[in-house]
This record gives sequence, structure tokens and C-alpha cells, in this order.
Amino acid sequence: MANAGMRFGDMLARIAETGRALIGAEEPKALIEQARTILGSEGEVSGTARARAFLDAYRALGEKARLDFLREASTGLGAEAATLGAAVEKYLASRSDTDARALHIAAEPRSQELIRRLNRAPGAMPDLVAMREDLLRHLRDEPALAALDEDFRHLFASWFNRGFLELRRIDWNTPAAILEKIIEYEAVHEIHDWSDLRRRVAAPDRQLYAFFHPALPGEPLIFVEVALTAEIPTAIGPILAAGRETLEPSRARTAVFYSISNCQEGLRGVSFGNFLIKQVVEELSAAFPSLETFVTLSPVPGLRAWAGRQGIEAPAPDALGPLAARYLVEAKRPSGGPVDPVARFHLGNGARLERINLGADTSGRGEAQGWGVMVNYLYDLRDIEKNHEAFAESGEVAHSAAVRRLVKQAGQAGGARA
Amino acid sequence: MANAGMRFGDMLARIAETGRALIGAEEPKALIEQARTILGSEGEVSGTARARAFLDAYRALGEKARLDFLREASTGLGAEAATLGAAVEKYLASRSDTDARALHIAAEPRSQELIRRLNRAPGAMPDLVAMREDLLRHLRDEPALAALDEDFRHLFASWFNRGFLELRRIDWNTPAAILEKIIEYEAVHEIHDWSDLRRRVAAPDRQLYAFFHPALPGEPLIFVEVALTAEIPTAIGPILAAGRETLEPSRARTAVFYSISNCQEGLRGVSFGNFLIKQVVEELSAAFPSLETFVTLSPVPGLRAWAGRQGIEAPAPDALGPLAARYLVEAKRPSGGPVDPVARFHLGNGARLERINLGADTSGRGEAQGWGVMVNYLYDLRDIEKNHEAFAESGEVAHSAAVRRLVKQAGQAGGARA
Amino acid sequence: MANAGMRFGDMLARIAETGRALIGAEEPKALIEQARTILGSEGEVSGTARARAFLDAYRALGEKARLDFLREASTGLGAEAATLGAAVEKYLASRSDTDARALHIAAEPRSQELIRRLNRAPGAMPDLVAMREDLLRHLRDEPALAALDEDFRHLFASWFNRGFLELRRIDWNTPAAILEKIIEYEAVHEIHDWSDLRRRVAAPDRQLYAFFHPALPGEPLIFVEVALTAEIPTAIGPILAAGRETLEPSRARTAVFYSISNCQEGLRGVSFGNFLIKQVVEELSAAFPSLETFVTLSPVPGLRAWAGRQGIEAPAPDALGPLAARYLVEAKRPSGGPVDPVARFHLGNGARLERINLGADTSGRGEAQGWGVMVNYLYDLRDIEKNHEAFAESGEVAHSAAVRRLVKQAGQAGGARA
Amino acid sequence: MANAGMRFGDMLARIAETGRALIGAEEPKALIEQARTILGSEGEVSGTARARAFLDAYRALGEKARLDFLREASTGLGAEAATLGAAVEKYLASRSDTDARALHIAAEPRSQELIRRLNRAPGAMPDLVAMREDLLRHLRDEPALAALDEDFRHLFASWFNRGFLELRRIDWNTPAAILEKIIEYEAVHEIHDWSDLRRRVAAPDRQLYAFFHPALPGEPLIFVEVALTAEIPTAIGPILAAGRETLEPSRARTAVFYSISNCQEGLRGVSFGNFLIKQVVEELSAAFPSLETFVTLSPVPGLRAWAGRQGIEAPAPDALGPLAARYLVEAKRPSGGPVDPVARFHLGNGARLERINLGADTSGRGEAQGWGVMVNYLYDLRDIEKNHEAFAESGEVAHSAAVRRLVKQAGQAGGARA
Repeated sequence: MANAGMRFGDMLARIAETGRALIGAEEPKALIEQARTILGSEGEVSGTARARAFLDAYRALGEKARLDFLREASTGLGAEAATLGAAVEKYLASRSDTDARALHIAAEPRSQELIRRLNRAPGAMPDLVAMREDLLRHLRDEPALAALDEDFRHLFASWFNRGFLELRRIDWNTPAAILEKIIEYEAVHEIHDWSDLRRRVAAPDRQLYAFFHPALPGEPLIFVEVALTAEIPTAIGPILAAGRETLEPSRARTAVFYSISNCQEGLRGVSFGNFLIKQVVEELSAAFPSLETFVTLSPVPGLRAWAGRQGIEAPAPDALGPLAARYLVEAKRPSGGPVDPVARFHLGNGARLERINLGADTSGRGEAQGWGVMVNYLYDLRDIEKNHEAFAESGEVAHSAAVRRLVKQAGQAGGARA
Repeated sequence: MANAGMRFGDMLARIAETGRALIGAEEPKALIEQARTILGSEGEVSGTARARAFLDAYRALGEKARLDFLREASTGLGAEAATLGAAVEKYLASRSDTDARALHIAAEPRSQELIRRLNRAPGAMPDLVAMREDLLRHLRDEPALAALDEDFRHLFASWFNRGFLELRRIDWNTPAAILEKIIEYEAVHEIHDWSDLRRRVAAPDRQLYAFFHPALPGEPLIFVEVALTAEIPTAIGPILAAGRETLEPSRARTAVFYSISNCQEGLRGVSFGNFLIKQVVEELSAAFPSLETFVTLSPVPGLRAWAGRQGIEAPAPDALGPLAARYLVEAKRPSGGPVDPVARFHLGNGARLERINLGADTSGRGEAQGWGVMVNYLYDLRDIEKNHEAFAESGEVAHSAAVRRLVKQAGQAGGARA
Repeated sequence: MANAGMRFGDMLARIAETGRALIGAEEPKALIEQARTILGSEGEVSGTARARAFLDAYRALGEKARLDFLREASTGLGAEAATLGAAVEKYLASRSDTDARALHIAAEPRSQELIRRLNRAPGAMPDLVAMREDLLRHLRDEPALAALDEDFRHLFASWFNRGFLELRRIDWNTPAAILEKIIEYEAVHEIHDWSDLRRRVAAPDRQLYAFFHPALPGEPLIFVEVALTAEIPTAIGPILAAGRETLEPSRARTAVFYSISNCQEGLRGVSFGNFLIKQVVEELSAAFPSLETFVTLSPVPGLRAWAGRQGIEAPAPDALGPLAARYLVEAKRPSGGPVDPVARFHLGNGARLERINLGADTSGRGEAQGWGVMVNYLYDLRDIEKNHEAFAESGEVAHSAAVRRLVKQAGQAGGARA
Repeated sequence: MANAGMRFGDMLARIAETGRALIGAEEPKALIEQARTILGSEGEVSGTARARAFLDAYRALGEKARLDFLREASTGLGAEAATLGAAVEKYLASRSDTDARALHIAAEPRSQELIRRLNRAPGAMPDLVAMREDLLRHLRDEPALAALDEDFRHLFASWFNRGFLELRRIDWNTPAAILEKIIEYEAVHEIHDWSDLRRRVAAPDRQLYAFFHPALPGEPLIFVEVALTAEIPTAIGPILAAGRETLEPSRARTAVFYSISNCQEGLRGVSFGNFLIKQVVEELSAAFPSLETFVTLSPVPGLRAWAGRQGIEAPAPDALGPLAARYLVEAKRPSGGPVDPVARFHLGNGARLERINLGADTSGRGEAQGWGVMVNYLYDLRDIEKNHEAFAESGEVAHSAAVRRLVKQAGQAGGARA
């Protein structure tokens, strides 16, 4: 009897070959066929290998063929109509919880189960996240993809549940492969090179924390950069400056969250930021008992575009503060929340709009987005729950007396203008 | 301004206190109230802490109060009837995939979302697994718990998806805390003491592999014990014997899976065994290229009970082999599969019933369950997929010529008896 | 051109074969020859492989052949007489420091350099430690081995220098392979089985610390067992008892070192205990700020033998305390230190003899060695340096007032008896 | 009774204060005094803390004060004259091995023991290595330091013995703190930035290996950079080029050691390179069985200076190869070895001078040192031992037929010129 292990390899090789055959065909139809096979064979012996072959085949497709497959999967793998119809009948007859549950199951699109089964392959998660990235790239132009996107978002929210995330401090002893990704993913204040990075992770008064997930090893999901300072900062320049003096961390009184970046486009809609900030506050409180204030230094990315829509192209220097205050406190989306996305995030977390800083970001981007304005959102944990609730229920924006004065000024100016 | 971190601690303390208050009350109603609060507050600031407090409170309840809570959660947290009714209407009107998806979501019981939100607490998973253990203990007597059990099973199947499991070899360098659990969890051939364990994990011709999950650190989910041997074994005694001679593993031709134990009662119904055996075959094939045969040495736990139901109390020595063969190949449950649970598992994986060994397990338990009979299921990877399919589709039990002869003998004997 | 790496393997294989040839011969002379080759070829290409082959060959020898080799190495690999003679001449002529250094080098026995070169082999250290164990077994009967033993001790003292040692806490997460050695090496209060071990390492009020060295991975060098208690204990029984109540460690005021065991016979004479106790005091002080007292609970192993030499076979109960006090405080070796080896160790570290406990060790060994007496040595860090100096300079034994009273009683009794 | 642990801290604090007092004084005499205290108190309680304080005090000294201390330690801590005199007498009387050993010990300079005792402090080794760096900086101008340097070299050779070294592959998952040191320490072909480094460690056909020592964590001792190639390379440019095509490593037939850098100036004279190359050959052979040739691509750093001494300032293009061949094969130092230091190293390891490549290093440095010439030394393991021995005994330089022809040409040219 020949070596069965070798034959096991043979079997895997055969399945992999099928995968390659699919690849050769550049034929999304073949892939959908394969998907149906995977869905059809519960508990099948070679499920894991088949899922792996599928993912390899998908990855080998060109952009066009991938899109064809995704469209097909989004529209062609819904619930079984007959089964669902029967479950609906049954529920209507009884209105029982039991039949509601049966209905829930019957209504589950098969595409959701497909994603679950693909995830059985070893190392499947990076492929699945990449597949959703493909999908998101086309979503605006292809509303038909929304159904599959919903499946991804639902499953990712469950799989990337807070309980599975691991917080790690990133420092100068972190592997270069991860640090390189930090450079790449930084979305707020670009990291120019390794020296810039070193200043942000290796100085005693700088910290960087990231969430990781066991199924995406070596891939940060989100990270936050923190500066330990004496006072609440009024500008980003001094925080990032190359030659700045460092502060003995045991003497810091303020922790400044000066940059938060999501790393995985494919996980869009799965929210990590809220949990990250809160856990980092806990870590920092424990490590540096002298800290009294937890605050952000945040951009106001939508200010200039919004002002443009109000017909304001070049506000007078005096008018900029009030304008920003009005924008942040009063400008709302049709659906109710603040127009500004960064404001939405921090106010939704229960932070308070504390201070508006002019000339705080002199970079091209800072000018282009918000005339150089940056703001501090304060995480005062005595008020955070109250703020969150007021915001969630009535859209109320918590803000300091100083900001209130600016809003009032803006109102008067606006009145004057009117 | 006082230390905000301290105040953060204060907030957590306040929430924890609420938890303890619940505990004091021994009042499952209060817990259900708390569950509704957790469900009601999407994105809430203190969600993580509240989930932690809830789990602590639950753990502090007595058995009776826990059961009350579980019953309430199982029956009182179904889908919202009004929302679901509307979704049904809409679906019936359109029969569209989009509305089917909406229906899927509207029909989801809130108890499922409750479990997801509890899982946001740090270290929640062991609590959730323990909660389901509680539930399973009462399930037979309390059919009302089945609904909640379904939620757990669905979520655990997703969270303990194959892609998240980590295979580890357990050996003499494994922490004692884990080895102690191996001793405790061994369900087939009891491990008597640390010397017995040492023989099973530290000998060069013995291996033990387990699956772990990142959210249950230090807790094996399932493990398999393997003996490397020259031939397919006919009895368990020589494999477990204290003074046996070890085999140079590079000369082994057979890998024997002689014990498979599930460790987490709370994960019942989430299947790991199939994946485990296949990955271990891969590991062993790579590590020991001389291996040619992968086979089990398995008990026949249902034989004696089944024979009793046939009116056979003490089969003649000659009749035992044929009887066992008939039992394994022909005795079926009303729902179709083999009566014997171990047979169901291995045949379902695509293995073949290779040999029936008399006098193979002389322990009290071996006698009591199956008159000392043990069998070998052969994992021949050339046939495994074909076997699996024949079994899944038509219930066909793959078996060797030798077993076939025994079945035939049994038939003739049966004929004679009739 | 064939694979050079394969050929590299060939070369190693050739050298290893030479090693095996030596083995075949059972010929210590051949080994000495090999030793001379190793000494003769500075920087030689195959030095590492040759050292490995040598160590393998030595290990394969029988006891007798090993002894022959060791005797030969001890007496036949001294300094080169001619070189040394010349260096002496030169030094006598100049009496310069430079010539003294040259003399130091010329007088170095070649056996010392042999050991250094053997240590170039990968994983050589366990072999060298085992070689010295062989040597020590014969040392008493073979004074000629003393020279080689000195080489070992000198080099081991340098290689196992405090700066290279790593303190690790041993607990229930430690690999079983190491825990098994703790059971084996415990030299004071035998560990009966794994349950006994578990009580000593896994209870919250018990700790076990060991020193490790990077060149002896997985091998503890020395370990100390610690109990956290409320008061200074008077007997060992309650500390080791199976059913005892555990103490919440944050409420402990006393740390009791109740067992210290050296593990490596081959490292005899290299002192670790002093450093271990002091570092463990530091660790415990940091981890448990409530600790106020650091004390031992120690046997008095030489008491009964010493009393026998004084003609005392069965002291009256009242007389036992005074007798033990007199023994520990006054009985001295010809060379000056206390007769009792445990007393020598702790008093030499600067501890104070605090209390004498009767009926403290009711085991057979406790009775046999010291009629059940145990004592507490107190590590009071205010006095430790002063005590050490007084002990080192004038042999003064620091002891408490209570012990002083017992000594006085003993004197009076002695006077009465005389 | 107050917390003894705190008091232990007090004691350490007191000793540390003494250290700071020394610092204040900027007084090397005080340090020598402290050194004598450390030497005088065998087994002293606070030895570890005292050594730590000493090292801190030394580090706080200015350059001048350090030099004063080193000079004093080198000249004032020799062997005790009286003891040594007596040991000499004794030896002269007996000429016995025993008395030779006693002489060895009596002649040991106390400065050696001082270094051993300093090494008892936690984390002492980096301080000791730095101390020797100081010493080496002044050694040329201060021959009196040679004695202390000898102590360091002797002890470092023993402590950094091959058996204690750990080989690690450096790649893109290595902590940035270590990679940064690789950039800093590269001594042959400068690493310009992180992208350059990434090309050298992260490409599949590039490898970098380093030796580490447990007492210098995070500090490479020496490293070698390896390129996997099809053929023996003739120039360094293509190996370092940014846009080059990578080679599938399983198809490589040649491993090229293109850069070897010692990292620790303070360990000068302790040889690692020989061991490193050989172990890396072993690692590569095992990992890439297709490798057939192990070769260097090495600079000829002394060529141009040597030619200048021969009066050759600008050799004709045709003459450069023969000139380099003559230099490498025939130019010897008064003490016998080749003039070229790189040649000395590889030939001493048993390599063969295989090929001379013109225009191989077009960097400024390559031109300045050797008119752009680089050479390949071949590690052919069949011949390595033979080569080494011929080189060690008679200074014979192993070289290929091609090199031999160049040498002959050079002779003829030389003859012509003469």
C-alpha cells in the first residue's frame, strides 16, 4: 500500500488543479458553479481544500471577471424561494416565535453561508477581506452588489466582534513588516519616512496602539497615535516636529489622540474606533497615573466644502472661528447627525467639542479641507455617557462655553449679514 | 482637574456595582431587564462594561435563578412581531431577493443579538460557553430552551469556524495547566495519572494534537491521541501498556487514532472532529513520510444495548464478530444513519469499516458497552470522498471484504435462527 | 559540481565517524589523543564538529573508560613545562606586571583550554556539566582528579556568572518537562506527586522561583519554594498540608523560604543561593507590598550527628531547644564556620538565627537528622550587611534574644552536668 | 515592623547614592577605591548592587576621567607581588603540575577578577563592552592600557564562546530596533535607507544572518548578507540594484556572501566570522538543497595602498588583474600572513581565491581602495580543511588556475618591467 499521506497530497493537488482550471478559463460562471458545489455539500470531506481552491481561483481572476462573479453571487444566491415561501405560510398561520426563527433561517441568503464556508479554508480571512475590497470599489456603480455587501458586513461584524480583538502597543521593537503598514495606512497626518515613524513610536512621550485580530496576523485593523503633553495642544506642528523636546512621561498631564486610522478598507462599516479609544484610555491611565485629560487634536475635514455650499469662499480671519463653531455644532445631515464625519465619530462616542484652534494645521491638506482649523474633542469620562445619550437621542452636540460663545458670535454675524 | 482615568475606573465601578446589585437580588427578572438595556443601546459608551457586569451577575446566580433567566431569554426575546409582520407583507408583495434579505433580518430573534453584544466584553467567551452548558443541562426537561440553544449553536458555529481554529501538538513541554485538562477531558480511555499521560504525549511513537481557539486561551476544544505503529492494531491494551517497547517513529507505517475527545460541553453540535482528523493526517504525513496507513482503533459503544433490544444477551463467542458486523453495517436509526455514534462519525467522514477485533478492550467499560469489541475505521484518502458521498446520499456503509464476510455469516446465522 | 552542502554534511559525517571509531575502541587513550588534536589546532576549520564528536565519544564510554580519560586529562594536560620555566625566569628577572601576566598565561593548564574548546560545540554545556558529575563521583577516591575539577570549577564560575542567570517564576503554566525536574530535584521536603507539586506552585499563596542559564535550556540550576503567610511559621507540616486554607496573598505579611534545592550536581561549588534569595526578596517585595518579614523555615541537618559526637543520644524534651541553640551558635568547624551546613549558608548571607522550633518536622528524616527541630533564619535587610561582615570577619553568629536565652540555658545545663 | 522590601530598596538606594557621590566627584581615584572594595569582599551581601553602582558611576564620568581610571586599573591591579613570589618559589622547588596551577592562580591580575565581579550586576555586559570600547580608543596612544585590554579579551573570548552564541535570521519581521542597528553597523556596502535594507532582508533570494548573545539582547555581534544567485557574481552592483529581478530561491545554485560586518567594537579580537560562515552554510544547505556553490564577493581593501608602496599609482587596464593576483597571492606581512585583511580572513578559514573581477565595485570607496577590483573566495568544503592547514602551516594561498595564470602574467610583466 503506497503512502496515504502522499495520496492525500494528490487529492489536494487534484482539487487545486480544478482551481487552476477555473483560472485558465477566466470564467466567473465556472466559479459560481464551484460556489454552488461548496454550498451543496454539507460536511463534505474536501470542503476545506475546495474552499482554498476557490479562493485561489478568485484571486487569479482579472478585475472584470471578478466583478462578474460578485454580481452573480449577489443576485443569484439568495434564499430558496420555495423553502422561504413555505416558511412564510407557516409563520403567518401561527405567528409563533418558533416559526419566526424558522423563517429567519429560511430567509438567509445562500451567499452568506458561502462566505462562512469559504472561511473554513486555512488563512481564508485575508482573501475574504480582499474580496470585499473588490466589491466596495464597484458598489457605487453597481447597486446590485449591495446584497452581497450586506452579507459581508454582517459576518465581519460578528467575526471581528470586540471580544476577539487584541490591543497591542506598537513601538520600535515591533517587526518592520508591521511598522511598514503603519506608514502605509496612516490616513490623517502622513508619515513621511522611517525617521518620522520612529519619532511617533519610539519617543518616551509618544505611543501608538493598534487592534489586531487572530485571523489577520500581522495586519493592524485600526490604530491611534498618542502624544503625552503638559497642556491641551493647539496645533499639530509641534507634535510632529523633528527637533522637539521630549517630555518625561511621568510628568505628562494630557494624553492627546492626534491621529486615528482605519487600515482595512475591506472591513468598512465594522466599527473599532470607539472601543479602541476607550481601551487606550484605560491602558494609559494605568501606565501614567499623572494623566488628567484625554483629548483629541482632530481635523475638520468637511468645513471648507460646507462653507462653499453656503457661498463662503474666503472668510475674514475673525470670522473663521465662529464659522467653524457653527459648522460643527449646527450643520446637520438630512438624516440628523453632524455634517462633519470626524465630529460624528467623537460626539457619537460621547466626547465634547472643547476648543477650536485656528492655524493649527498649516499643511496643504489642512488648508484645503478646513483653512487650517483643528479642534479638540474632550473625553471627560464623567460626562461621556450623558453626552452620548443626548447625542443619540436628540442630536445634541456637547460643547464647551468657549465654543458656545463662538456659535453665538456666528449667529450675530449671520444676523448682520442677513 | 482630577485624574480622568481614575474617574473612568469609577464609571466601571458604578456599572459593576449595578451588576452586584443584580446579584444581591437573585432576581432573573433584573437580568432580563439588563439584557433589554444592552439590546436597546446601539453603540453605547459603556456597552463593554455593561456586558461584563451582566456576565458577572449571571455567574453569581444560583442554578434555579439561572434557569429562570435562560427560559425568559429563550421565550421572551424573539423577533419584534410588528416589524416582522411588515417585512412578511413586503416580501409577499414583491417576492424579491432584497425583501427576502430584509425578512431574514426582521426575523432574527433579539436573543441572538444579545449573545453577540455580550461577546463584546473582554474575556466573554468562556462565560458564554458556560452559559450554554447550563442551558444544555436543562434542555431535555425544558423544550422551551431550544430556541436560545439554537442561537448559541448558530453563533458558535460561526465563531468557532474552522478558519479560526489553531492546531497545536501537545507534548511534555506543554504547560501543566493544559495537560491537566487533557487528563480531565479524556473521554474514551481514561488517563489514570501523570505517568499515564506522560506515556501518551512524551514517547517518540505517541502524539497528541488539539484544536484551540484564540478566545478560549488555555482550553483545548477537541483532541486526538495517536500511536505510531508497525501494523494496524487489534487491541487497545498494548497501546496503553506501561512497559511497552517504543518504536523508532521513522519506521512506523501506521498511524492509529485511538482516542478522540471533545472537551467543551458548551460547544456541543459544533463539529471539529472531521477537520481535526484531516489536519492531523496532513501533519503526520509531512513529519513521518514512512506512514502508509491512517486508521482508528475505536469502541463500539452502542453494540450491547442494541443487541439487548434484539433480545440477545450473551452471544456465543463465534457469533460476536458477525453480530458486531451486522450492527455496524445494517443497524440504522429511524432518521437513516447508523445506530452507533462512533460509526456515524467516522463513516460520515468518509472512512471505511476495516476490521472487527474481538477481545480488544478488556476494561469494564469495554465489556459493558460492546463485549470488548473494537473496530478499525480506515482513512484511505483515495476513497474518502467517494465513501462520504455514498454514505451521505444513500446511507451506504463502506466496509472491507472481511467485514462483508462477517455480515454474511450473521445473515446466515440470523436466517438459521429465524 | 555536486551540492557542496551535502559534502559539508559528508565532512561532518566523516568526523562523527571518527568519533564513533573512538567509541568502538572503548579506549580513553584515543580520546586523549583527540583532546590533543583539539588543543593543537587553533582556529581550525572543523573545530566545532570535532568538539561535538569528542563529546559524543566520551558519552559513549563506559564508567571505567571515562574515569581513565578523566585521570589522564587531569594529570597529563598541565602547562607546558618549558614555556612555563621560561616565563618564570623572565618574571624573576623583571618582577614586572607584564611578566606576571605572561606567567599567568604560561601557567594555565592546557586542560582548561580543552574545556573551553569543547564548549564550542553546539549544545556542549549539558555534556560538560555531566562530565564534571562523573568527575565528582570519583573525586574522593581519586585525589588526582582535583586538578581537572579545579579547571571545571573555575570555568563554570565564570560561565555561570550571576550576570548570565535568568530568574523565572515556576507555576502551573510551566512546561511539564520542567516541573518534572522540580519534583526530581527537590532535596529538602520531598514532592510526593503532581498533586503535591500543584499545591506548591499553583496556590495563590505559594511561589517557586528558579535560576536558569541560556546554555542549559529547560534545566533549573537552583530553586526556592516560598509560602506567603500571616506569621513566622513554627512547623513545616501546615505549610505542606493538602487541605490547608489558602491566604489571600495581598494580606500576607511574611514570606517564608521553606525549601532551597540545588539541581545540578555538576555545578557544585558555583554558588547561586545567595543571589537567588536576594532577587526573590526583591521580586516579592515589588509584587506584594504588604510583606514585612522575610524568613526561612530550615532544617538543622547536623544536629543529631553532632550531639552524638558529644555523647548525647536522647536529650530530655526541655534540653532539646538549648542543645540546638548551642549547636547552631557555638559549634564550629576546625576552619571556623558553623558545623551546620544550612546555618553556614544563611548566616553567611547575613541572616540572623531568629527562632528554634521544636516538633517542627515530624517526618522520618526530620527526626533522624535533628529530632524534629527546625529554625527560622531572618533576612532583615537593615542588618544583613553588618551581620555578614561580623560573620565573615570574626565568625560571629547573629541571633535573637530568644535564642540567646536558650544558649545561656544550655551553658547552665552544661555547667550543671559537668 | 516596617516593610523589609522597602528597606531593601533603601539599601540599594544607599549604595546607588554612593555611586552618584562618585559621579559628583568626577574622581577616578574614588572609582579605583570602589574597585578595591569590590575585590576585597568575597561573597559580600551587596556585591551585585555595588557592581551596578560602579558601572553607573563609570558611565557618568567624562572621557578624561574614564581614561584615568582605565590607566589606573591596567597598571595598579596586577597580581599581588608577595603571593606571586611565594608561588614562584614553590613551583621552582617542585616543578609539579599542582604548583604550576597554584602559580597560574597567583599570577592572575586582580583586574581580571574585577571584570568578573562587575559582570555580576544585572545587565552588566553592555557596560563592560562599552568600557572596552573606551579602552580601545586610547590603546594606540596608551600602551599601558594593553594589560587591561588583555583581561577583557581573555574574558570576552570565554564568555562569547561559540557555544553561547545564537544564530538568528534577520528578515522583515525582525524588530525595527535591531534592523536599525544592521543599517548602522554595515561596514562593507553601506545600507542607504530602509528601502535598501528591505531589499537585502525581505527579497526571497536575499538572506541576512546574525549571531546574538543572551547577555547582549537586541545587539547583533556580527552579520553576513547572502545573495542566492544562478552563477558566481562578478560585480556588486547587480546584487544591490533596486530594480533587479528576483530569483526563485529553489532554483538558486550559488550562495554569495557579499558582506560581513562585525558590530561590536568592544569585542574586537573575539572571532565570530569563521563560525558564522560555517553555520550559515549549514543552514542554507538544509533550506535550499539546490545550492552547489558557496562563495564570497569580497573587496580587496589593501590593494591600492600596497601598490602605492610599490610605486604603482595607475596600472594599465591590462595590468590590474595580474597586479591584484600578485598582491593577494604573494604580498605578505612581516609576520607571514597576506597583507590584505579580507584575504587573511577567508584564506584562514580554508577558502580558495577563485576569481578576480575588474570593475566590480564602481563606488567611490571601491575605486579608492582597490581600483574597483573585487574577488570571489570559494568555500569548497571538500578542500577547506586541507587549505586551512596548508595556509596555517606554510602560508600557502589556495587559488584557482585562473588566478594562477594572472600571477604568472604579473611575474612576466614584473620581469619585463625590471
